[in-house]
Amino acid sequence: MTRTTETTIEADRDVPIVRITREFAATREQLFRAHTDPVLFARWIGPDAGDTRIEHWDARTGGSWRFVSVHDGVEFAFHGCFHEVRPDRIVQTFTFEGEPDGVALETLWFDDLGDGRARLRTQSLVDSFESRDAWLASGMEGGVNEGYAKLERMIADGAV
Amino acid sequence: MTRTTETTIEADRDVPIVRITREFAATREQLFRAHTDPVLFARWIGPDAGDTRIEHWDARTGGSWRFVSVHDGVEFAFHGCFHEVRPDRIVQTFTFEGEPDGVALETLWFDDLGDGRARLRTQSLVDSFESRDAWLASGMEGGVNEGYAKLERMIADGAV
Repeated sequence: MTRTTETTIEADRDVPIVRITREFAATREQLFRAHTDPVLFARWIGPDAGDTRIEHWDARTGGSWRFVSVHDGVEFAFHGCFHEVRPDRIVQTFTFEGEPDGVALETLWFDDLGDGRARLRTQSLVDSFESRDAWLASGMEGGVNEGYAKLERMIADGAV
Repeated sequence: MTRTTETTIEADRDVPIVRITREFAATREQLFRAHTDPVLFARWIGPDAGDTRIEHWDARTGGSWRFVSVHDGVEFAFHGCFHEVRPDRIVQTFTFEGEPDGVALETLWFDDLGDGRARLRTQSLVDSFESRDAWLASGMEGGVNEGYAKLERMIADGAV
């Protein structure tokens, strides 16, 4: 049986939330590792045209993180704190430092589907529809799709 | 001139946010101290009938916190992380451990009004109107008002 993996990106109608869902041929534990191990995370996050440098990484409840993505020599920095890190769920904050007053509250769920498959669900909550819609209009889905495709290849290669 | 200090608690119509505003006869720096110094914070947070015990407190960008409020021998615990701590704004997460899956993203602004007065503005964002309205219906305004009245007395007494 062949299953295609597709990323679903949805804007909530009633609340300024973006939800992303994607299945992987991976265990829940692998998805968790890919989001908490800084060496693994740096290899897949973001679009293909770019490298990620982890500046700080403490993936535990009450920890924090910062990374820099480099595209054609231009640096884009991001930071946040880990509100909660547990095997089935990560809750963290997220700021793109180019817009230092903007903050998203992100929740990631790792759902075990059995048969070596797991579903990643994420939710990004911000405080206005304007901010949410500007992010959606920024072309973010390119980076999201390319990042998850990299993660899928890493899983297939046994790297996670 | 006498000014009365009142707390305004508002539910946003379009986004699941609660906003609280209150003026104090204090400087912006005093309001910041009252929210970042754990000894001061424990003295005013919460309703009159209760004591607060700080379990962990690291009020800096990327830090975290946990405290326990004791009412009639019953303990209520809360925790979160500090996304950003700067003189005019604190952004933090907030979970009441009795509802461990619920998370609020809280922003506090300290506005200098001159003449020894400052305004505290807070915003609590959650991911559903149901959660927001349940919190509003819980009688939270009693604790909010009593807490800020304690803070006002501490400021008048020169304790902050």
